[in-house]
Order: sequence, then C-alpha cells, then structure tokens
Amino acid sequence: MDNMELCEANNVPLTPITFLKRASECYPNRTSIIYGQTRFTWPQTYDRCCRLAASLISLNIAKNDVVSVVAPNTPAIYEMHFAVPMAGAVLNPINTRLDATSITTILRHAQPKILFIHRNFEPLAREILHLLSCDDLQLNLLVIFIDEYNSAKRVSSEELDYESLIQMGEPTSPLVENMFRIQNEQDPISLNYTSGTTADPKGVVISHRGAYLTSLGVIIGWEMSTCPVYLWIFAYVSLQWMDVYMGNSSARGHQCVYEPRNPLDMSHRSGPVHLMTGGSPLPAALVKKVQRLGFQVLHVYGLTEATGPALFCEWQDEWNRLTENQQMELKARQGLGILSVAEVDVKYNETQESVPHDGKTMGEIVMKGNNIMKGYLKNSKATFEAFKHGWLNTGDVGVIHPDGHIEIKDRSKDIIISGGENISSVEVENILYKHPRVFEVAVVAMPHRVWGETPCAFIVLQKGETNKEDDEYKFVAREKELIDYCRENLPHFMCPRKVVFLEELPKNGNGKILKPNLRAITKGLVAEDEANVIS
Amino acid sequence: MDNMELCEANNVPLTPITFLKRASECYPNRTSIIYGQTRFTWPQTYDRCCRLAASLISLNIAKNDVVSVVAPNTPAIYEMHFAVPMAGAVLNPINTRLDATSITTILRHAQPKILFIHRNFEPLAREILHLLSCDDLQLNLLVIFIDEYNSAKRVSSEELDYESLIQMGEPTSPLVENMFRIQNEQDPISLNYTSGTTADPKGVVISHRGAYLTSLGVIIGWEMSTCPVYLWIFAYVSLQWMDVYMGNSSARGHQCVYEPRNPLDMSHRSGPVHLMTGGSPLPAALVKKVQRLGFQVLHVYGLTEATGPALFCEWQDEWNRLTENQQMELKARQGLGILSVAEVDVKYNETQESVPHDGKTMGEIVMKGNNIMKGYLKNSKATFEAFKHGWLNTGDVGVIHPDGHIEIKDRSKDIIISGGENISSVEVENILYKHPRVFEVAVVAMPHRVWGETPCAFIVLQKGETNKEDDEYKFVAREKELIDYCRENLPHFMCPRKVVFLEELPKNGNGKILKPNLRAITKGLVAEDEANVIS
Repeated sequence: MDNMELCEANNVPLTPITFLKRASECYPNRTSIIYGQTRFTWPQTYDRCCRLAASLISLNIAKNDVVSVVAPNTPAIYEMHFAVPMAGAVLNPINTRLDATSITTILRHAQPKILFIHRNFEPLAREILHLLSCDDLQLNLLVIFIDEYNSAKRVSSEELDYESLIQMGEPTSPLVENMFRIQNEQDPISLNYTSGTTADPKGVVISHRGAYLTSLGVIIGWEMSTCPVYLWIFAYVSLQWMDVYMGNSSARGHQCVYEPRNPLDMSHRSGPVHLMTGGSPLPAALVKKVQRLGFQVLHVYGLTEATGPALFCEWQDEWNRLTENQQMELKARQGLGILSVAEVDVKYNETQESVPHDGKTMGEIVMKGNNIMKGYLKNSKATFEAFKHGWLNTGDVGVIHPDGHIEIKDRSKDIIISGGENISSVEVENILYKHPRVFEVAVVAMPHRVWGETPCAFIVLQKGETNKEDDEYKFVAREKELIDYCRENLPHFMCPRKVVFLEELPKNGNGKILKPNLRAITKGLVAEDEANVIS
Repeated sequence: MDNMELCEANNVPLTPITFLKRASECYPNRTSIIYGQTRFTWPQTYDRCCRLAASLISLNIAKNDVVSVVAPNTPAIYEMHFAVPMAGAVLNPINTRLDATSITTILRHAQPKILFIHRNFEPLAREILHLLSCDDLQLNLLVIFIDEYNSAKRVSSEELDYESLIQMGEPTSPLVENMFRIQNEQDPISLNYTSGTTADPKGVVISHRGAYLTSLGVIIGWEMSTCPVYLWIFAYVSLQWMDVYMGNSSARGHQCVYEPRNPLDMSHRSGPVHLMTGGSPLPAALVKKVQRLGFQVLHVYGLTEATGPALFCEWQDEWNRLTENQQMELKARQGLGILSVAEVDVKYNETQESVPHDGKTMGEIVMKGNNIMKGYLKNSKATFEAFKHGWLNTGDVGVIHPDGHIEIKDRSKDIIISGGENISSVEVENILYKHPRVFEVAVVAMPHRVWGETPCAFIVLQKGETNKEDDEYKFVAREKELIDYCRENLPHFMCPRKVVFLEELPKNGNGKILKPNLRAITKGLVAEDEANVIS
C-alpha cells in the first residue's frame, strides 16, 4: 500500500504561478488588470509574465536568486509576482515608504541580483547606489527601471528597462516551457522584510506551497467568486496571487477608499462592495459606519510571517438573529483561522497552556500551518525564537470567545500600526536613544484620526535638561527638535507625531516600562498634524 | 535560502480529516448530518469519529490497514470517512449493489482487517463469509454490523456492533490525540474498486493530499458556501469530505430527486437548489427541463482514478448574453479542470499531440494533478498503463472547444452508465461468453428512460441454433433465458435489459467489432421493463 511511487501524473508541486496559466486558458476574454486607461486580459498578462521570466533567465537569474523591486501599485509589481518565481527566483518586494538607508540595509541582507525600481524613485535609486558603493563588500546589482506602461518618455535604447525586457522575452523558448517545473513546492517564492532599519533585519521567506494554500484559504474564506473586481489598496503578498485562480479583474490604484474628499460613488452598484480590512483592530462603531456606506466588511488578522491573512471574521448564520450593534461587535472580532492555518490558539506564555474559551483571559496568539513562513533569512536566532514550542509565536495578545472566535486585545506590546504599516516602537526608540539630550524613551501608539495610530514618544531628558512643567516654551522647541531629528534618521511614517516629556517612566517591580499606562495617556493627546484638522 | 528546515509550526500534512476538528470548533451549533429524525451537530460528529477511531486502534488497526464497509448512505458511512483515516487506516467503501461473489473478490484483493456491514445486508454477509471460508488462503476478517442509529433491535452484548464501538471509544486517549499526526500526506486514505467481478480487480488508492486538494477544488468550483444543505444521492469519495470544511449540513437519503411519484416540493424555497450531476453526459434539453423545475445544474465529469469530480462546467459571465438554448448547450459540456487538476488535455492516442481547440477533433482525455490516484493496488501493470506518457489516460473520448472547455463525445468505448453506475461491457460479455449457446457477443449501452442507459447484448448464437428472423417465439424464449442467466451470475444492475440476435456482428477490417454501429441500432429499441411504462 505504501510502496506506490509518485509520478509526473499524480504529483504536481503546489504553486500559485500555475493559476496564471489556467486563467489564460479558461478566461481568454476576461480583464485581468485595470490600471488607469490600461486594460489587460488574462492571456496578455500570462504572455507578459512568460516574456519577463524568459528575459530574467537570459540575464542569468538562477534558481533561488533574489530579485528586489521598489514600485508603487502598478501592473509591473503584479506581473513580477508571477514572472520572478516562474524564472525560479525569489521576489523581494520592498516597501516604497522606506528611505534609502532602510532599503540599502535590506539589499545588503537580501543580496539580490537585480533591483527593479519605478521611475518615480529615480533619486532614491541614486541614493541607494551611492550608499551601496561605499560598502567594502560590493553588491553586484543590476538596476532596471520600470516606466509607466504607456509612458512617452522612453529610455535610451542602451538602458535596460522593464518594458524592453518584456518585449525581448521569448515566451516560447524551451526555458519558459520548463519554467513551471518547480521541483519542490517548499522552494522559496518570496522574501518580505518586516523591518529594515536595524542591523538585525527580518526577511520572511515564504514557500510556493505556503503561497498556494494561503491563496486558496483567502478565496474560500472570502467567498471570492462573488466579487469580480478588486481594488488593491494595500496588498498582502498572498492576495497578489489569489484572484488569478478565479479569473477576477484587479484594479490597481493609490487612492484610498476612505479619503474624505473623494468618496467612491456607490450609487450605481446593485450589490454591496466587499471590503477586506486588516491592520489595527477595527472598532465596532467604525464597522457599522462603513457598512452603512454600502460596504460589506470582512475583518481579518494577519502577519507577514503567516503569508498575510490568517484569521477571518466569517459571517455566521446565527448572527442574523442579533441586533445590528451585536452584529457589528461580532464582526469587529478577528475570527477563525482560514484553511491554510492548521491550528490557531491563544496560550499562556509561561505554561504554554491554552487559555479558556471565555472571551476574557488573555494570552499570546500562536498558530501553525502551511501558511507559516519557512523562517527569517540568515537569522536563525530570530527564527528559533519565532518557532519556539512548535508554534509561530505572533507576539500578539488575544482572547478566545466561547464560539472559538479569536479577538485581539493588544496588537502587540510594541507594534504601532499607522496607515496599515507596522512600526516597531523599538526601532524608533533606538534612534531616539542616540540623541544626546535623551535619557530614557518609550514609544507607544497614540490614536490618530487619519492614520489610525501614530507613534508617540515619552521621553525623560538627561540630567541638567529642563524637565519642569512650567518651562513650556522650551518643551515645544525640544519636541520639534526631536521630531525633526527622527525625520532625518527614519522614514517619515515611522516618526513620532507627538513627544511627551516625563520626570520618569512608569515601571513595574522588575523595572520594565509599563507601556499600557503610557498608551492610556495618549488617549487624551492630539498629534500635531491632527490639531490643524480639528481646529 | 534553500537550507531552511521545515518544522512542526510551518509544515502540516494536508488531509481532509482536519476539516472535522475545525468544524467542531468553528461551528459548534450547526447541524452536521440530517438522517430521518436523527440530527447531529459538528461537535457530536467529531466526538463520534474520535471514539470510533479510538476503538479501531484498540482493535489493533495499524497504519495502512484496510477497513472495508458495505452500507447504504447512512451516518455511519459518513463517519467512517473520517474515523478510519484518523486511526491511520485506509477506508474501502464497497458498492452495495454488488453481489456476494463480486464483494468477495474485492475482499480477497484488498485484504481488510475489518468488514463493517449494514444490518440490512446480513444475508449477504453470511454468503460472503461462506465464500471466504472456502478459500485456501484464509482471510482473518472481523465482521462488525452497523444498525440504524435509533434501532430498537440492538444486538446481544457479546456481539460487537458499530454503535457499541462508538460508545466504548475513549476520545481523550493519547492514541486519539496523536491520531491527527498523519506523518505523510501521500499516505493512502481510501481504496475504491472500479470493478470487482473479474480476476483483475482495480483498487484505486487515493492519498490524504489528493482527497484534501480535491475537496478544495470542489468547494471553490461549486462556490459551495452558498448552499448550506446537501442531499447526497450518489457520493463521490471526495464529496464526503468537502462539506465538512464549510460547516454545511449533509442530508442523507436514498430517495431519488427525480423519482416521478415523489418530486421534491420546491415551492417553499427562496433560491434555486444547486444540483451537481455527473455520470453519462446530460443532454442540453434535459438541463433546460431540470433548470425550469428550479434546480441550478452544475455538470461535472469525473472518475474514481481522479478522486471524483475533475471537470466542472463553470458558468461564464459572457454566457448571460446568449439565448436559453445556447446557454443549456454550453452547460451540458463538461468544462474546465478544477483546482486539484493541474492540467487536462485531449490528445491523439497515436502521436500524443494535443488536438486543436476546435470543438470537433476527438482524442483521449488525459489529465495530471494532485487529484490523480496513487495507482491501482497490487496491479502495477494496470497502473503503468493508466500513467503511460506521464498522464492519467482516462480512456474517455472528447473534444476541446475554442474557449478551453472540454466536452465528452463518448464516455468510453465500453462503459455503460446505468443509474450512475459504471458497467464494463467487457465484464457482461465475459459472463455471456460462458453460456453454451453464445458464439459471439457485444454489449453496448442502449438508452433507458429511467436509468439513462442500460446494457443491450448483441448475440450471435452457436451454429445449429436458430438465427432466423421468422422464428420469433424462440427468440423471445432465448432472450429471457440469457437475461435470467446473467441475473444468476452478475449484480442485477449489470444485466442486459435487451438481447438482440444477429447472424453476425459488424466488424472493421481488422476484425474489431464496430460498437458505434450497434449503439445506433439500440436507439430504436425499448427495454423490457420500459415497454410496460410506456404502454
């Protein structure tokens, strides 16, 4: 019974890149990508990806080579999610909001063979190349620019650009025909950095199998087939792949659905718009407000280490009998593990026992499954810590309700989520600690009307510095000085929008700073840029 | 990059049995099974399966042992689809329409440790045990009866029966807790015989991985979440597992939806009933008729070797613009490969080249994917033949339309599909060839009002027997004699309902019988039992 050998006919590696071939064959007339005036069909997208993959191979991209990209939400970044792994390589998409230093730190760590960079970021590219050229250890990096698809200002014929790679690629070459032969579904497909500014960057490695199964989990969990067009605001890794299987259209753009000056016109729509939201937990009142605008909200919880979305707040038939307020409160919870999550639990850190399903007792959210990263690239210490006790330890604190639904009580002790971006408070603290006037610092999230959360720094100045409350003029000047200092040393979105000076930081018996107490203080504060909006 | 080791947290074997644990945790109040007056919830079903698995382990069922079952569509057969693999064993569900000889042939080949058999089949069980006892090679078989759940006539306390195994099982034993640790997703989960009456039985071995991925393919392909209750008429293997993931209810019964005297009352339903149909290709006119009754028809094509459904005729938005007749014709096609099918193609047998996508050129339907069986148990010759050229060769003849949809033109040269059962014409012919009066025989499908198709035998009698058309009385007697003979030697559903005597069989130049010509003749014939209905 168990000595039956697997063969080509019955053992096919799981990889989302096969979705694209299927879509091109099964949905030959359907729109794949909508971007401004540009429209592609699935056969066009497939052809473009095959050509790009062929060009990458002709540029000597080999198996498991890293290909990095810095680009806004354009067709190119979509295509690269397929073309790069089709060539056997690993895609490393880099956050466009990072500064040159952070990106250079990532590049030094990831050691890509090629960096694709959008033409909008040409000055950034020069800065990155300058920083890299100062290194003792030279990175042999080919930089290729991505122009807008219909851009008139094409580059000189000598310079290699994205579109010319697509034009040059031979989609029928034997190399391309063999491209789909991913020999091992556990091979890496992507490398995503959760944090790039420290000396200890964490590059999350995701496998083809993980990306495939997470895509399916999202398709099933979101009942995706009912929504034929997707507008991508912030794209999780796995979401780039999933809609391909269903042959759906993908609209790419930068405008925010909630931008108050430009609300989406919903009047022409016959059904609700399905909206998936993650990041910081959504208050029930906001869910209610958004639903009344005509959106059907799906609340999700995810993390890069879990290939994106991991918990979905799936609608339960029983909820139809509840009041609207009760429904919205249930909808604001994070819910149940999706398909690719084998198990999710909330455990006491000390005993590793599961907390009771009472909706009250807090513990660390842990999970296991095929959606979980292979590990952090070249960081076995962090990988070991993440996988301690045989689970992915998320670092996030939550409860389990009697119906098995998980609710996050504290996104984590140190993460600030601002405009959907994770900010490590430790990174901001590390920068501030380098400032000569700073004795002690703790950075926590403060509520922000536009960004959800924004960093707020609580600072104890060095001895001899003014710490008295009556010296208000000096405090205003110090706050500006420290914020400006951060802006010089960190990506802007990571900088505190508020600095509070204290005589000492609140601490527990072991000398550990009590961040919950600081967060409580921020509830009454207003960020600088917010004050203008309110007044 | 590629030296990252997999661990418990990020590498979980794919198996559909985990769906049940999830359903019990996520849908604690939902109905799992509806059977007459019996209702189970998901936690109850999960508990019953854990208990049964624990009992199987205490009966020394070890990894890869086979457990056979002969039972109608009851909760027991549903539970066994989970409990048996939870114990590490392989489920072998046997067709209840087979006779004792056929079942004994399967048991001799499969060598199960336990045979579960429904109380309704007690005489059959005795016959099987008698046949087995005549064997030189004794099969050490434990027979366990399945009584109806609420049956009053419980067995004596000494006899082991299904419900007592469930009562005795310890769902919290360490054995049960380790049950889910399927170490290898390629391990076998089930063994299904496509044909049991010949000396060369074909036992299709399906893996946990194949069952898992096929379940997902069906869930996604059928957009299952929209239909919360399923009525199982004829259950493909994979369909038993799939609805568990979605937490749907499963109604189990024997009455046929189309039984004319007892039509389902559709008047109380707000939406359409979704109907999945496979087996013999459905004529467009029938699809139209059924849809008008309030059913939404999904036409599928599958085979045991592909873990059940493999092609779905998925609705395409473009079809909304067509006339109803055009729509029904498109819906009558078999469609596109589901998720678990990596590739499906139609190839010329001789050259192994793909046929053009013209909807006309016929070839053999071939496929590859994780849905394909591991092979035929202890039959490497048949396995080798099935996997020749690196594909599963289905033996079915089809065409590909320009939109990539596949349509089956001839289910196969020799298969007759009667009431959803595959009948090998060769098997029926083999029996008839043993009759002393038969010189030559060819069995083909003839249309049947109730069963779709039924076998029709074309027979050339031995020299000296009457073959003249004027001797009609004798022909009627001969027909009855031969049908009765078949009924003594074959399961009833396999017996020809019509016998036609010919002077010689139509043959091509190589002496091969031209079955298409014979099929053409059957169009004008009426089966014996059908004649009564019509008159």
